[in-house]
Parts: sequence; structure tokens; C-alpha cells
Amino acid sequence: MSTIPYKIYLEESEMPKAWYNVRGDMKKKPAPILNPGTLKPVTIDELSGIFCRELAEQELDDTSRFIDIPDEIRSFYRMYRPSPLVRAYCLEEKLQTPAHIYYKFEGNNTSGSHKLNSAIAQAYYAKKQGLKGVTTETGAGQWGTALSMACSYFDLDCQVYMVKVSYEQKPFRREVMRTYGAKVTPSPSMETEVGRKINAEFPGTTGSLGCAISEAVEAATTQEGYRYVLGSVLSQVLLHQSVIGLETKAALDKYGIKADMIIGCAGGGSNLGGLISPFAGEILRGENNYDIIAVEPASCPSLTRGRYAYDFCDTGKVCPLAKMYTLGSGFIPSANHAGGLRYHGMSSVVSELYDQGIISARSVEQTAVFEAAEMFARIEGILPAPESSHAIRVAVDEALKCKETGEEKNIVFGLTGTGYFDMVAYQKYNDHEMSDYIPTDEELSKSLNNLPKV
Amino acid sequence: MSTIPYKIYLEESEMPKAWYNVRGDMKKKPAPILNPGTLKPVTIDELSGIFCRELAEQELDDTSRFIDIPDEIRSFYRMYRPSPLVRAYCLEEKLQTPAHIYYKFEGNNTSGSHKLNSAIAQAYYAKKQGLKGVTTETGAGQWGTALSMACSYFDLDCQVYMVKVSYEQKPFRREVMRTYGAKVTPSPSMETEVGRKINAEFPGTTGSLGCAISEAVEAATTQEGYRYVLGSVLSQVLLHQSVIGLETKAALDKYGIKADMIIGCAGGGSNLGGLISPFAGEILRGENNYDIIAVEPASCPSLTRGRYAYDFCDTGKVCPLAKMYTLGSGFIPSANHAGGLRYHGMSSVVSELYDQGIISARSVEQTAVFEAAEMFARIEGILPAPESSHAIRVAVDEALKCKETGEEKNIVFGLTGTGYFDMVAYQKYNDHEMSDYIPTDEELSKSLNNLPKV
Repeated sequence: MSTIPYKIYLEESEMPKAWYNVRGDMKKKPAPILNPGTLKPVTIDELSGIFCRELAEQELDDTSRFIDIPDEIRSFYRMYRPSPLVRAYCLEEKLQTPAHIYYKFEGNNTSGSHKLNSAIAQAYYAKKQGLKGVTTETGAGQWGTALSMACSYFDLDCQVYMVKVSYEQKPFRREVMRTYGAKVTPSPSMETEVGRKINAEFPGTTGSLGCAISEAVEAATTQEGYRYVLGSVLSQVLLHQSVIGLETKAALDKYGIKADMIIGCAGGGSNLGGLISPFAGEILRGENNYDIIAVEPASCPSLTRGRYAYDFCDTGKVCPLAKMYTLGSGFIPSANHAGGLRYHGMSSVVSELYDQGIISARSVEQTAVFEAAEMFARIEGILPAPESSHAIRVAVDEALKCKETGEEKNIVFGLTGTGYFDMVAYQKYNDHEMSDYIPTDEELSKSLNNLPKV
Repeated sequence: MSTIPYKIYLEESEMPKAWYNVRGDMKKKPAPILNPGTLKPVTIDELSGIFCRELAEQELDDTSRFIDIPDEIRSFYRMYRPSPLVRAYCLEEKLQTPAHIYYKFEGNNTSGSHKLNSAIAQAYYAKKQGLKGVTTETGAGQWGTALSMACSYFDLDCQVYMVKVSYEQKPFRREVMRTYGAKVTPSPSMETEVGRKINAEFPGTTGSLGCAISEAVEAATTQEGYRYVLGSVLSQVLLHQSVIGLETKAALDKYGIKADMIIGCAGGGSNLGGLISPFAGEILRGENNYDIIAVEPASCPSLTRGRYAYDFCDTGKVCPLAKMYTLGSGFIPSANHAGGLRYHGMSSVVSELYDQGIISARSVEQTAVFEAAEMFARIEGILPAPESSHAIRVAVDEALKCKETGEEKNIVFGLTGTGYFDMVAYQKYNDHEMSDYIPTDEELSKSLNNLPKV
């Protein structure tokens, strides 16, 4: 047996004391985000009307390399972190690959995913600012769950607008949020102006993420003592998620392991950006080289088939615009697509790193993703979230390539969460009712032709 | 900050290499199990017709103190063990108690509970014996899930008879089992003689655990190369679950912590028995003293209100009889009872330890249990299974007593699993639709009067 254990746990004393801001090491920075009204770079004051002040500052800070993690947040992190870096011995044996496979598992907390890393930070700054509460939207519910937990910890009010179809189809997610004291409202609701308007215009609509964002933003800006928070895409979120990459790097260093390849799934980019930040930083500083791969679904291929341009971050067009790889804010992935990662755009930091060639991207089809998910579940004993399974797919493919070439690569991938609340998708796969869907060029140009003229 | 970390993880090299069989240290042994046909002590040959040979041997072995854990099982254990012993710093602060609270968390694996510890052992011995597969029953689904995972790992066929009402109400559990390749059949089915008989007798019945056991046993004994396996109650299961207690003890010893109180929830007794075994052993050998508390639901109070007598382990009366604290095999807890732990009897080992005064017992009502569960979820960040929450309730009560007395007790409890698949029960609690139910003496005597005459 190797001296590398199945699970590498850092000591609490080895946990990161500061987040790493990869923008600080980028010579060419991501383009500034724009005020949707003026189309000029957003000011800190404008941004502070929507977000907490300190989060707004983090959002605009593209020079600091490190930002201290406040003690209160580190204390919360200690309840569920460090997360293990797992050596996938069983998977390696099953694949008969000479590659060494490692995965950073972020699912060992009740929110079931990495989302908690940023949720607790955003709740902390809201509390510190003396706010009463925060509002947000949630689709599948991972982010809403994480935020509910974080708000409960800091005794903040938490108002979640949950896309109506998910509210009805995922009652368990809803109940977890309620157990943590959150108020969960199906969106569109009759509680906001925009919700009433949408309900009047489209009677019986089951909602969309864009609509839920608009409701959450309205609720934040019309209630005294509230701000809006968001679980992905934003640079502040990537900053908080850098704790994943920092721990991964520290665990590898502890055992003298040099990663050759780092693989992460990419929806809005929060997990991928967090995982790869310290590694991308080394590339940017010319210290090291890694093969970094962002994995996205073929049904929502913003990096591999999108355009690098300014776009709205939400379909409601109330949030700032960001320059990013996008399919157009009007793009809606096929309903057939069960595997998560449905966002039309990509974090501006990840987009810029991709544009500079620091990272590459690959798209995969969902049946191949679920095939990998099922194999992984059976061999490694963890039932992965569909999102995470995109990374598994590519890690397995790369390990099989190593089998052909005989290369002993160190492959590291991010396992962002568990799939306990995604069993409807697994059922479709088990019942052979799942198929693949790749948008045609015509479909993509339809939404890409409607990009804002900036 | 204390030098005791939030989570104590043993090194892989510190993990137990042998299970501990507490019966080896008992001067007065648990009474032998009886053949349901002859009412005489079951022989190893009789038992080997239902269970794998080595498991049957373990079942009857009441003298060996330690039994080596085979390498193949230790290898699987390393994928999800050692489980953390968590210092509940946040809960202590919330309660403002001088007590130190620790919990052994067994929920960090896909089966979501401690059941996997025995499932993998039972699957291993089945594989070693060259069997094709195993059959079992499952109610809520924790055991079925664990067994599916274990069988998938050893490439064994796994046939699960799932109580029909659960099969329909818990489709996600069912899908997890299917994802692990198990065949899940709603019980009563038309696939067994006993199933067809019950369906004819009670058209439209939604099934019961007793019926599912009978189907699983029939399926095991009528198919070539199959055996039946069970997730609790049996002494072999307690033996495998001793890994919980051994790790707990090792983690406490590592930091020089002497437990004053050990608390576990008790249904069939598998978790409780496993957790307390090494501690009970020290009491039996006169080396140490601990206050050990078994916590059971007030709606199904086998230890606190049952009778210590021979009884059937299943309502179908096909399994061996055991001397145990029982409410009678005909006892069915109120449907109102959502909190797990619905078994009418108690492991014969736990029963004998209770009868000898080595452990004590306490019953709690379910709304109080869910109150503790919710508080725990909000403060410690883990959404507990309703079963586990029985132990949380008593741990909290004891910590509050310490607050009054000023005692700095070390309270250790077992957190057996997570509640992700129990959100219907949480919803009832959230919606204030949950009430308590305590069976009357008349109700209990009805089933107790029907105990077999042995």
C-alpha cells in the first residue's frame, strides 16, 4: 500500500488564513462590470446599493493577491472543512490506469456542495454591516440551502425566491431551507411588482432563474436593511471559493505531489474558479505549468461555443453587465438537460483566463456524464451531483488516455457535491429515458444576435 | 481556542484492525437464539442455510473478544472511514454549558448512515463463500442503500424487498439503490409465495417490514447461491458496528479525554451496540465506569416498557427467536410516528447489558426530538436523521443539566446519519403537523400477551 492515504485531511492549523484573488496576478485584468442603466463601469457606491459594502469592495478589487479570512468565517469553516482530498485508488484500479487520480470532495456538509464556502462569507459581511437579512434566488436549490445555513448561523433573515417548477418538484430542498429558518417563496410570486407583472403577463408560468433574480433584487432594494446575494459568477464568489484550491494545493504539497492536470465542472464558474485559482496563479507568475480543463455540458456550452462579449448576467437585465463567454442572456438550455450547469454565461475571471489560454475547455454530453457518475458512485462510494459528474467524465477519459500512453499523470478534479436531491435525473438515466441534446448553430445565433450593444 | 480540534480524525494506521465482540467479556451471556420450528437453540448448520457460514459463526460466537477485520473490508472502510469524532463547540456555546460535547458522525457516506459498516462485511463474506447474491428487506431505505453499495463493490446481486408504502413515498431512496445496481421490489410482491398469499388476503395492502422480511427470506432460500442478510438486531451486526465504538475510544484516548456519558439512539440496537461495546467492555472487566444511555422513542419503547422474553424477530415468524426486550412481534408503532426506530424488539446483546444494569435507557417524544434536530442542524451545520436526533435530544438535556450543576462532563453521543431522505418528517415538523403518541398500557399488553410460549 502506498504511503498516500485514501483521504488527505489537512490539520486545522494548515487551513488557509486568507483567500487568494487570482486577479491580483493577472496582467490583463477581467473587463470591468457595467451599470445596466448607464453602461459605464459600476462604482463602489452603486454596487453597495445591491451588495454589502465589503462584498462590493471585493468585487471590484483586482489588485490584492490575498484577502484575510475573518476569524468568524474561519470558525465556521472548521465545522465542515478542511474537506478531504481523496486518492481514488479504487477508481484507478477499476480503470487499470497508471494515472494517479485525486478529487477534492466538497459535498460533506448539509448544503451538499461547495456553495457554503461563499454563503457563509456573504452572510458574515451582511451581519457585520448590521443588515437584517439578505435575499437571493435559487434554482435546483444548492445555493439556497447553503445560504439558509449561513444565515441561520449568523441569525440573519433569509428570503429565497425559488423557481416555481423547482419549488414544486424539489420539495425536499425547500424543506431543508425551511428547517434552517429561510422563507422560501415560489417565483414568480405575488409579493413583488415584477412577480405580479410576470404572473399577469404569463398566467400559470412555472418561472425561471432570470425572473427569480429580478424578484430577489427587487425585494433587497425595497426592504430596509436588506441586500442581494448571489452564489456564482461574481468575482467575490470566486475569491471565497479559492479556499478549495488553496486546500487542494496544500494537501498535494504536503505529500510532494505535483498535479499535471486540474479538472473542474463549470456552470457560472464558482467551483472551477475557486479550485484552479492558486494553480492558475502559478502559471500566470511563470512558476509552474498545469493542464487546466473547464468542463461544461454540451447543451449549454458557453466557453466552447459562446462569444466573449459584454452581456447581462440575468435574463431580467437588472444586474450589472459583465464581459464573459456567453450564449446570450436569452439562451435557455433544453428542458431535457438534467445535469445542472444551466447558466448562459461564465464568470468574467474564468472567461479572461480562458481567453488568455491559461485554461482550456471541453464540453460533454449528459448520458456520458451519468455513465461516469454511476461508475464513480459504485466504485468510490460517493453518489455525485450531476454537475460534479461532468468533471468525473473528463477525469476518467484522461485516465484512460494515460492507460494507452502509459503516462503516470497526477489528475486532480473537483467533486463539488452530492446528488441526493437529484434522484429524478438518476431515475431518468436508470430508466433509459435520458437523451442528449446539443443546440444547433441556428439556435445559438438567435440568442447571440441579441447581445447588448456595448 | 482549545487544543482539541473541531474534528478528530484518526490516521489510517490508527484504524481498528479487529472488531470487538462484547459478548466475550460478558460473564452472563445473551440467551441463545432459537429455531422457530423446534424452539431449540439454533445450530450452526441450521443458521448457515439462511446466513453465510462465517456470519452464522460470528452470530453464535459469544467467547472470542476480537475478530480480525479482513483486509478487503478494511480497504473499503478506508474509503469513508475513519469517521470524525466532532467536538460540538458551537452547540456548547449555544447551550452555555460547561459540558464538553462530542459526537461520532457516521453520516459522511452515500448510504447516509452507519449501516454500511455491517453491509460491507456481510457482502464480503457472501462473496467469499462464492454466492451469487443476497436478499434483504428495507423499510425507510438506509439499510437497503448501504447493502446496494456493498454488493456493487463486490459485484454481488442484491435483491431488496422494500415495504410498498416506502417504495412509493421514498422514490429517491429507491433510485439510489437502483443506481447501485440493486433490484428493488415493492413488498408484498407477486414474486414470492408469501407475497402472493398476502396480496390475496389483503388486497391493496401497502406492506410491512415483517412481510418484506418473509419475502426476502423466501427469496434467499429458494434461489441457488443466495443468502439472506439483515441490518440490525443480530449479534454479528453489533460486532461489525463495534468499529464505531473502537474509533470513538481511540480518538478520545488520543487526546486524553475520559468520557463520562455515552448516548446512542436505539431501534434494533446496531448503532448503540456498536458505539458502546468497547466502553461496556471496560465496565464488564471492572476497569472503568461510564454512564451509558440508550434512547428510544416513546412511541416504540421496547427497553423502557417492554418485557425481557423470547420473541420472534419478525412479524412473519420465519426468523429465529431471540430473548430480548420486546413489545411483542405484533406491535406496530403509530403511523403518526415519523422518527424512525420502529422495531418492536431490541438486540439480545443490548437487552442483556440493560438487564445487567450496564446501560440505562430513556424514551423521548418525537416533537422534542425534532426540536433538538432543528437546533442541531442550525448550530452544528449537519441535518441529522430523525433516528440520530433521539440521541441529540438526550445529549442536549444532559448538557443543560450540567449547566445547572456546573459539572464539566464529557458527553459523547452517536450521530448515526443524515436526514436528506427524511424531509417529509421535517416538513410535518416545520408545518406544526407533528404530534406525539405514547401507546397506552392496554395497547402494549395486547401484543405482549401474544408472546410465544417458550
